[in-house]
Amino acid sequence: MERVTHWRHLLANSLVANAHVKHSSYFQLATVRKDGGPANRTVVFRGFVDETNTLQFTTDGRSNKIEEIHNNPRGEICWYFTETWEQFRIHGRLDIISSSEAEMSRKSLRDKAWFGLSVRSRLQFLGPAPRLPTLANSPEESKVNPSEGPADAFCLVLLHPREVDYLHLKKNQRIIYSCTSDDENWSQLEVNP
Amino acid sequence: MERVTHWRHLLANSLVANAHVKHSSYFQLATVRKDGGPANRTVVFRGFVDETNTLQFTTDGRSNKIEEIHNNPRGEICWYFTETWEQFRIHGRLDIISSSEAEMSRKSLRDKAWFGLSVRSRLQFLGPAPRLPTLANSPEESKVNPSEGPADAFCLVLLHPREVDYLHLKKNQRIIYSCTSDDENWSQLEVNP
Repeated sequence: MERVTHWRHLLANSLVANAHVKHSSYFQLATVRKDGGPANRTVVFRGFVDETNTLQFTTDGRSNKIEEIHNNPRGEICWYFTETWEQFRIHGRLDIISSSEAEMSRKSLRDKAWFGLSVRSRLQFLGPAPRLPTLANSPEESKVNPSEGPADAFCLVLLHPREVDYLHLKKNQRIIYSCTSDDENWSQLEVNP
Repeated sequence: MERVTHWRHLLANSLVANAHVKHSSYFQLATVRKDGGPANRTVVFRGFVDETNTLQFTTDGRSNKIEEIHNNPRGEICWYFTETWEQFRIHGRLDIISSSEAEMSRKSLRDKAWFGLSVRSRLQFLGPAPRLPTLANSPEESKVNPSEGPADAFCLVLLHPREVDYLHLKKNQRIIYSCTSDDENWSQLEVNP
């Protein structure tokens, strides 16, 4: 069981203070491509795993992200809150839960994430593969059975944070949090912005 | 001389359509750390180089970014426009113009970028080194001589794009642009979102 850390409180406060803005639940996730270059895209935050520091988001098992993460499981989120001028850079290990997951508690996290999506959001996982040339039409919303479990392509991705770099532009404050050997111990250091 | 491409027109339109929102000039830049993990942070767009496709932003020569870029010059910008629901992922080569630059036209780009900053923005380059433990107080605004040229730590960074992945969420449209052998030739392909 991870302890809820100081940065996690700051992030919880930012989420509340920015909740009136739809895009406050979006962040940018950087990974490393197979060819060694960086990749970066917007992702929707799907909450923490229970009371831990682990962040959740979803992705399509047919997207480039999956191969990139298998090859190099490190990720860095950049989450900028436009209303409060705060930035969280969250670096850690990415962990994919796909349709082939065997472990029960992980399968159930994936199921829960699926049923947490709107029917409209589920559609993209039933449509044609991302990044392939546009040929087919997307399936219609009315074709989705709301009680049906996750589509094969649906993946839940977890980020287990190891470092957090917090910047508060209005206060001109920057704090770097580092996780030592295990998830229980975080150190923090105030640095120049 | 590069040709102004289709994605560049789309981006110009997005900048106009989102201009009333201050944060529309911010994007997230991903690079690769020396240890092979991704890095990601918010950066302020400082315009294109003249009529080219080359994007400009500034950074502190004492930040981690510089070492990362020297080690691996590839970058990917993720630019999400919150009002129009458009995303541009711009991948390319990063190119730093620092205080040691000898080439005149590049020196003059750096000078121009410096004088384009507010006096307040110039302050950060005169203050203590980023990421070092907070000790000194930041210099005061009144101490900046507005006619003085760039601080030593001031760097201009150029991104020369090679690939652009454009996503329009409202239209459910995605187009991938790729630059072939030279900067003149861009191909485009509409793909599934």
